[in-house]
Amino acid sequence: MPASPSSSPWKTADDRLKERETKREAVLLAAARAFNERGFHNTALEDVAADLKVTKPTIYYYGESKEALLAACYRRALDTLDEVTRQSEGEAADARTRLRVLIIAYGEAILSIYGRCLTRVPDNSLSPPLRQELRAIKRTVDDRIRRMLDDGARDETLVATDTKMTAFAIAGALNAAALWFEETGPWSARQISEHYADLFVTSLTPR
Amino acid sequence: MPASPSSSPWKTADDRLKERETKREAVLLAAARAFNERGFHNTALEDVAADLKVTKPTIYYYGESKEALLAACYRRALDTLDEVTRQSEGEAADARTRLRVLIIAYGEAILSIYGRCLTRVPDNSLSPPLRQELRAIKRTVDDRIRRMLDDGARDETLVATDTKMTAFAIAGALNAAALWFEETGPWSARQISEHYADLFVTSLTPR
Repeated sequence: MPASPSSSPWKTADDRLKERETKREAVLLAAARAFNERGFHNTALEDVAADLKVTKPTIYYYGESKEALLAACYRRALDTLDEVTRQSEGEAADARTRLRVLIIAYGEAILSIYGRCLTRVPDNSLSPPLRQELRAIKRTVDDRIRRMLDDGARDETLVATDTKMTAFAIAGALNAAALWFEETGPWSARQISEHYADLFVTSLTPR
Repeated sequence: MPASPSSSPWKTADDRLKERETKREAVLLAAARAFNERGFHNTALEDVAADLKVTKPTIYYYGESKEALLAACYRRALDTLDEVTRQSEGEAADARTRLRVLIIAYGEAILSIYGRCLTRVPDNSLSPPLRQELRAIKRTVDDRIRRMLDDGARDETLVATDTKMTAFAIAGALNAAALWFEETGPWSARQISEHYADLFVTSLTPR
């Protein structure tokens, strides 16, 4: 059996790419954690570097500024929200079942470290064009919740008096949970998401 | 009929007190409006003064710093939340009816200009002792929602699987509405509050 490429003391281009990705992920996670805990304005890049036991220039190599790191955290959160809500939209099931899946998926995404960053750090530190772009993704996600409520009116598995306001209530309750959620707290992200899903789906079930 | 005291060109001590209160209220409202629209860090006391067409020292006379003005806005919001939730707790009605009253009252308070300030401006600009004091009021309010859900389990007008998490969901959805609510928007604070009350009360009604 030939030696596996990784047994060589020289890194392959692929190894180096993976290593860079792993390091960038660690920088982003440390930044998100610092922003969530101390607030964006109270966090210095030196703190993020100290958390990772590296120098500030090392941080600069992975994100050219605090604003760029925040933008990357926001993008992670929004890409995930976009992806999971699109998936639940595509499920072959009635609207009520899909809404339950969507609320749980949205909840787990928003309670993740990047999701918490999205809800805890105001976006007014981002450049106006980027802010507009990211808010557009947020609107797409909110629109999906509303469309699912509309679908439920059609297939008669959900009843909402005002789908737009109801969609805001659902997203809002989950976003607010991201403000108080702690990984070391009494409930897991999954438990909270399921509880909120049951609460809203029960309310919206026709009787 | 004797001349009314206010027809004299000299102000009475009472008039002066009222005038001072009116001016202080105008300063607080202008500060809250600026914090809500531009963010706390992006607001300078000069902006608040300019909005009121007065000088910065005039502002200082009513609030000795930006932090003091924020603290006063927070206190207004929390005092109102405290008062209205205590009132709904005292109503002579079953728990479900009281919960509906409470959600509407909470909603109207949090959608007010000071309530919006409470949800939009992070409290990490306040001094730690004040922050602790204000958070304690917030907890008292949240505890009232939870107790009402517990009351509902006893008088059998409400059913919640986890009263603490349900109370968080209710307060959270309303707090989140304060983030997007605009006085010039399509719904009034009352309409939003009633919609949310119906949504949650429906979900929590035993069947």
